Amino acid sequence: MERTADVTQAIARALALELDANDGLGAFRDRFAPPEADLIYLDGNSLGRLPSSTALRLGEVVHREWAQGLVRSWESWIDLPARVGDLIAGHLLGAGPGEVLVSDSTTVNLYKLAAAALDARPSRRTIVTSSDEFPTDRYVLEGLAAARGGRVRTVAADDVNGPLPDQIAGALDPDVALVCLSHVAYRSGAVADLPAITAAAHEVGALVLWDLCHSVGAVPMGLTAAEADLAVGCTYKYLNAGPGAPAFLYVRRQLQEQLRQPIWGWFGQHDQFAMAPEYDPEPGIGSFLTGTPGVLGVVAVEEGVKLLAEAGLDRLRAKGMALTQLAVELADAWLAPLGFEVASPRDPTRRGSHLTLRHPEARAISRALIEDARVVGDFRAPDRLRLGPAPLYTRFVDVWDACDRIRGLVSSGGHRRRPDRRTRVT
Amino acid sequence: MERTADVTQAIARALALELDANDGLGAFRDRFAPPEADLIYLDGNSLGRLPSSTALRLGEVVHREWAQGLVRSWESWIDLPARVGDLIAGHLLGAGPGEVLVSDSTTVNLYKLAAAALDARPSRRTIVTSSDEFPTDRYVLEGLAAARGGRVRTVAADDVNGPLPDQIAGALDPDVALVCLSHVAYRSGAVADLPAITAAAHEVGALVLWDLCHSVGAVPMGLTAAEADLAVGCTYKYLNAGPGAPAFLYVRRQLQEQLRQPIWGWFGQHDQFAMAPEYDPEPGIGSFLTGTPGVLGVVAVEEGVKLLAEAGLDRLRAKGMALTQLAVELADAWLAPLGFEVASPRDPTRRGSHLTLRHPEARAISRALIEDARVVGDFRAPDRLRLGPAPLYTRFVDVWDACDRIRGLVSSGGHRRRPDRRTRVT
Repeated sequence: MERTADVTQAIARALALELDANDGLGAFRDRFAPPEADLIYLDGNSLGRLPSSTALRLGEVVHREWAQGLVRSWESWIDLPARVGDLIAGHLLGAGPGEVLVSDSTTVNLYKLAAAALDARPSRRTIVTSSDEFPTDRYVLEGLAAARGGRVRTVAADDVNGPLPDQIAGALDPDVALVCLSHVAYRSGAVADLPAITAAAHEVGALVLWDLCHSVGAVPMGLTAAEADLAVGCTYKYLNAGPGAPAFLYVRRQLQEQLRQPIWGWFGQHDQFAMAPEYDPEPGIGSFLTGTPGVLGVVAVEEGVKLLAEAGLDRLRAKGMALTQLAVELADAWLAPLGFEVASPRDPTRRGSHLTLRHPEARAISRALIEDARVVGDFRAPDRLRLGPAPLYTRFVDVWDACDRIRGLVSSGGHRRRPDRRTRVT
Repeated sequence: MERTADVTQAIARALALELDANDGLGAFRDRFAPPEADLIYLDGNSLGRLPSSTALRLGEVVHREWAQGLVRSWESWIDLPARVGDLIAGHLLGAGPGEVLVSDSTTVNLYKLAAAALDARPSRRTIVTSSDEFPTDRYVLEGLAAARGGRVRTVAADDVNGPLPDQIAGALDPDVALVCLSHVAYRSGAVADLPAITAAAHEVGALVLWDLCHSVGAVPMGLTAAEADLAVGCTYKYLNAGPGAPAFLYVRRQLQEQLRQPIWGWFGQHDQFAMAPEYDPEPGIGSFLTGTPGVLGVVAVEEGVKLLAEAGLDRLRAKGMALTQLAVELADAWLAPLGFEVASPRDPTRRGSHLTLRHPEARAISRALIEDARVVGDFRAPDRLRLGPAPLYTRFVDVWDACDRIRGLVSSGGHRRRPDRRTRVT
C-alpha cells in the first residue's frame, strides 16, 4: 500500500516536471539571481526576486552614474518617472503614454489621487470601499474622510470572492465621490470586475481609484478600455523592483487637467529649475509628481518591467492561472483532510496569481513552513496562508513540492513544536 | 612681471596644500569612490559623492538580503526608518532618540508636518515663510494654504543674508499658525538664527518647521536646545545617500501626541500586521511614517550618517567655514575684477558650507565650468553660481584650483563660446 502511494506520487510529480518542460516561460527563471538551494519561494506577491539585469543596472547606476557622473547624471535621471511610467502603462496596464508615473509609495499615491478625486466632487461626501481592502487603503480613506467631514461606506465583501459588482452598485448613490477598490484582493486573490464596477460608479457620477498592487504584472487590466479614472500600484511584488521600491500612479488623460493633487512639490512644477515664486503645475501627468524621485528604486522598476514585457503579460497570466490551479487541486487532494480550505475563488479567471488557504493554525504553519520546511509563503491575519507562485520564476514542480511539504509538516504536527511568534513581513 | 605672478601663485597654492596636509579630516577623502581624474566637484550640496562603505552595503543588501533573504529580510529592514532616524538625531541634529524618522521625500515630509501643524492651530490662518525659500517649500505651503482657505505671508528676505530674526518677528501675530524656513538658505547659504526665530514664533503661539536640507551634516543646529518643533531634511547632499534617497523628519517629543499627520498609512499603524479595521496610529514618532520605506535608500542614509558621525560634526563645521573662507578670499582677489560678487554672508559663522557668487553670465559660466574646465558647481536662477565644498571630501587645493579655473575661463571669455543651454540638476 505504501509502495503504491509512492509510485502514484512519483508519477504525479513527473507530471509537474512535464508542465515545466513545456513551459514557454521556463527560461526566465535563469534571469534571476539564484535563490538558496532547496528554498521554495512562494512570496513573490509580497517581495519579488532579484532579476540579474537589475543587479547589473544598480551596480552601473551606483558605480558609474552616481560615483562618476555625480550631479551631471540628473540630465538622464530626471525623465525616469515618466519614462518608466510609460513602460508600465503600455506593457502592463493597458493605458497610454503620459498616463502613468513612478513616484512615492503606494500609500502616498493613494492619498494624492483620492484627495484629488474628492476635491473634484466637492458637494459629495461619501467614499465607497470594501471590508477586504488592504489596510493602507482603508486608513488613507479614513484619514481623508475625517479631514473633510466625509464618510467611508464600507461594503462587507465576501472574504473569498471579494466585493461583487452588484454589492458595490448597491452602495452607490449621488453622494458618492469616489469608489476605491483593489483589482486583486490582497488576502483572497479575488479579481474584481474592473470594467463593471467602473461603469457602475460612472453612472452615479463617481470616480474610481483602483489599487493594482496585487494584480500588476500578473493580471491584465485594460484601464483605457474600461475608462478607469485613477489607479496606483506597487512595484516590489510582481514587478521585482526590490524592497520598498517606488510605486506608480495612473490618471486617465481626460482627467489630468481637471484633477489637482494636494502635495505641490517642485517636481510637479512647470519649468522646475526656473524656481518661480508661484506654483504653476506641469500640464498633464507631470503635476502628479511631488519631490525628488529615488533613482535606485526607479531604475530597478525599469529593469523589472522590461523583463515582464519580454515575457508578455498574456503568457504570464496563463501560467499564473495554471500554477494556482495546480495548487488548488493539490490542496483539495492533500490539504483539505488536514483542515485546510481554499479561500480564493475556484474559477481561475476570477483569481489573481496567489492562492489563499484558510486554516485555524495558519500563523504557526506559515512560520514553521519558512523555518523548518523551507517553503516561503506568508500569513495574513487572522487565519490565512498565502501561496504566491510568480509566473516569471516559479515552476510547477515548486508548487507541487510546496504542497507536499505543507502536507508533511501539518500531518506530522511539526508546526506545533515551535513558539507562536508573529511574522513581520510586508 | 609674469614670472613674479607665477611665483606668487605657486606660493599661494602651496599654502592650500599645507592646509590640506594639516587637515584632520583629510583621510576621509579616501573613504569615497574615486572621482574622475582632474574633476573638481563642488556640488556636494546638491548630490554628495558615493562613500565606499555605501557601495559595499548596497551590494550586500541587494545580493544577500534581497536576493537570498527575500521577504524574510523584512525582520531587520522594518526598523530601519527609526534606527537611522535616531542616528541622524543624535549625531547631526542635536535631537533625542525617537524624534526622527527616515521616510518619503523632503516634499512629502514638509506636507505632512506643515499640515499637522496647521491642523493643531485650527483657528489661525497664516503661514509665514520667506521669499528666498527653496521652491518646493513655498509650493507645499501655497497648496496647503489654498486647501484650507489660509494665506502665506512671505517675508521679503535679503537674498544674501537671508531673513533676519527681526524681519520674521515683524511678520508674526496671533493669526500665525506656522513659520516655515530653511536653516541654511539654498541659494545664498545664509544661516538663519534658529533659536531666536523659534523663540519669536513660540511667543505668538506659532509652531516652527525648519528645512534642514542645506545644513544637515554641515552645520550643527541643536534642535532640542532651541525647543524646535518640527524639521525635515534631505539625505542626498551632505549625507551622501545617493540620488533621491529618502528624506527625514523630526517632531519634538512633546508634540508627538498632539500632532497628527494627514497621510494615514499602514506603516504608521500600531501593530501593523494585525491589519485592524480602523486606523490606530503608533504612539510617538512612528505615526509619522506612511508607506513601505525604500530599503536601498534608507541603508545608504545609514552608511552616510555613520561616516559623518565618525568625522564629527564640529570638525566638519570648522573645516566647512575654512573652505568657504578660502573661496571668499580668492573670489575677492581674482573674481571680483571679472564681475563676480560674493552673494553669501561674509561672516563664516553666518554661512553654511556653500558659497554663492553673483554674475550676470552665471548660467553660461556654470555650464562652461562643467563642460570645459571640469569644475562642477551649479547654477541657481537668475544669476548665481554656487560652489559647495563638502568638508568630508573637498580639499583646500580643490577650492584653490576651482577658483583658478573660474578665473581662467571667464578672463578668456571661454563661457561665451558655447550655446546657452539650461542645466537640469537638482
